[in-house]
Amino acid sequence: MSRYVISLGGNALGKDADGQKALLKGVAKALFPLIKEGHDIVIVHGNGPQVGMINLAFTESQSTPLMPFPECGAMSQGYIGFHIQNAIDNHMAQSSLKRPVVTLVSQVIVDRHDPAFDHPTKPIGSFYTKDEAEILTKTMGYVMTEDAGRGYRRVIASPKPIDIVEKDSILTLLDQGHVVIAAGGGGIPVVFENHALHGIDAVIDKDHASAKMAEIIGADALVILTAVDYVKIHYNTDQETDLKRITVSQLEDLMAENHFKKGSMLPKVEAAMAFVKATGHPAVIASLAHAEDAFKQQSGTLIVSG
Amino acid sequence: MSRYVISLGGNALGKDADGQKALLKGVAKALFPLIKEGHDIVIVHGNGPQVGMINLAFTESQSTPLMPFPECGAMSQGYIGFHIQNAIDNHMAQSSLKRPVVTLVSQVIVDRHDPAFDHPTKPIGSFYTKDEAEILTKTMGYVMTEDAGRGYRRVIASPKPIDIVEKDSILTLLDQGHVVIAAGGGGIPVVFENHALHGIDAVIDKDHASAKMAEIIGADALVILTAVDYVKIHYNTDQETDLKRITVSQLEDLMAENHFKKGSMLPKVEAAMAFVKATGHPAVIASLAHAEDAFKQQSGTLIVSG
Repeated sequence: MSRYVISLGGNALGKDADGQKALLKGVAKALFPLIKEGHDIVIVHGNGPQVGMINLAFTESQSTPLMPFPECGAMSQGYIGFHIQNAIDNHMAQSSLKRPVVTLVSQVIVDRHDPAFDHPTKPIGSFYTKDEAEILTKTMGYVMTEDAGRGYRRVIASPKPIDIVEKDSILTLLDQGHVVIAAGGGGIPVVFENHALHGIDAVIDKDHASAKMAEIIGADALVILTAVDYVKIHYNTDQETDLKRITVSQLEDLMAENHFKKGSMLPKVEAAMAFVKATGHPAVIASLAHAEDAFKQQSGTLIVSG
Repeated sequence: MSRYVISLGGNALGKDADGQKALLKGVAKALFPLIKEGHDIVIVHGNGPQVGMINLAFTESQSTPLMPFPECGAMSQGYIGFHIQNAIDNHMAQSSLKRPVVTLVSQVIVDRHDPAFDHPTKPIGSFYTKDEAEILTKTMGYVMTEDAGRGYRRVIASPKPIDIVEKDSILTLLDQGHVVIAAGGGGIPVVFENHALHGIDAVIDKDHASAKMAEIIGADALVILTAVDYVKIHYNTDQETDLKRITVSQLEDLMAENHFKKGSMLPKVEAAMAFVKATGHPAVIASLAHAEDAFKQQSGTLIVSG
């Protein structure tokens, strides 16, 4: 019996409620062998498109108040968490397996002095004209940047996760054999100031949150599930090569050679390395399609210490 | 040490994120004595205005998909649950008290053959013209009714809660001293069909969900917090009288005399009676303002068996 943190990418989720339910049937099937074997499991999911959709609905709607980003993140945890636990419940029911599965609304602490707040990079929400963007900067204090010729968008910071507020509840449930869904979307970002936790406009990378989760709960392995079977070098050239087993120091060399794409494979590689460095335990980056083999370390890129 | 279910009315929540955070500071203060004394506590909150707001945002927004009602309910659990746990965390931090507080995304099972589905009564979402309403009935199968001269609205069913899917997780956390927020908005309504749980368009009354929760977790008391200090008879007449201590059979007589308003005090009285009948333990209907006295059964209407 092992303890796993599974990081589930946005490709495993859908564009609307029905699409998401359909895709999550596949996720439940992929995770079922691990659940059946009785391992301790925490699932951390992404929420990029979903939190954007929720924020956009409140921005475009005339009759509803604007919804701040932490609250949109909290809504996305309810929305996606419901579908994940429901899909797992239903897959287990087919096989008469019973394990409690539950989503915990999770706050993740970040540091207001994280350098990410000086250089917000994560584009969110609607597109605006240059004039509209200037007004938003003046009235709301938003940082706006031009987005690949498509218009101006707000960018917010992506600070590093420091701690998970609800970790005691996560550990208590894990210890009793419950499958836990937590820190969805990287967690609801909060800062601790004046002896209180306050929501802050930010997006925490879900792979970094997974690595922090894996460290906190003492996971035996961090498994990052994505759309590709392996981390690759010389990506999209005739020298393209799958990485099968690699050490942290080898990965550091490859990172220095810019093999991994920012905002895509790079944060996954960084998160995996952070966990392996902090704990000595392995991380796997693999495809959802081969999840079962990935858990046995027979598919995907295995990252080990050294 | 006792075990309580606390049902928190919509009046304790807000119209937007800032309003809700401000109001929940008061709730956290009101519940603090109980939390400090170490009692087992499950909080069940309402979500009427909030789930309506979320559904409306997706209906009015041009760029986002329509969001079904169970998913809107799940979002409201994340949104409101985040604010409740954050407010309690922050109030405890002021007094250096530490107890884990967490929101569980909760599915509540209802019966598709519940008579409520034949007579949907709960108005939700936007107002439409008669013509628009007829189109919605034809295309979406919605039941639409005229709402007090303000236009046509969709009405959905309010079936009785049968079971709480995540009850094992709730009990596990309670047993370890965690404060649990669950079945928010009465729970995400699901039906069990073809060996699987499916979301269904419905709204479960949060007081009935609280009574079911109290029964399931073996609560010593159900405390329904609302805007008024006491259940009253001859309400709004010169004979108006506060009920202080009353038996279930006395309440049944008063119900037969139509003392309690549908959609307002009646569901609270019915839920309280259901819990007292099922368990023999007392229920209290009291105001949030006098919550501390209500927990000591020194304020509010005490409903006992007999």
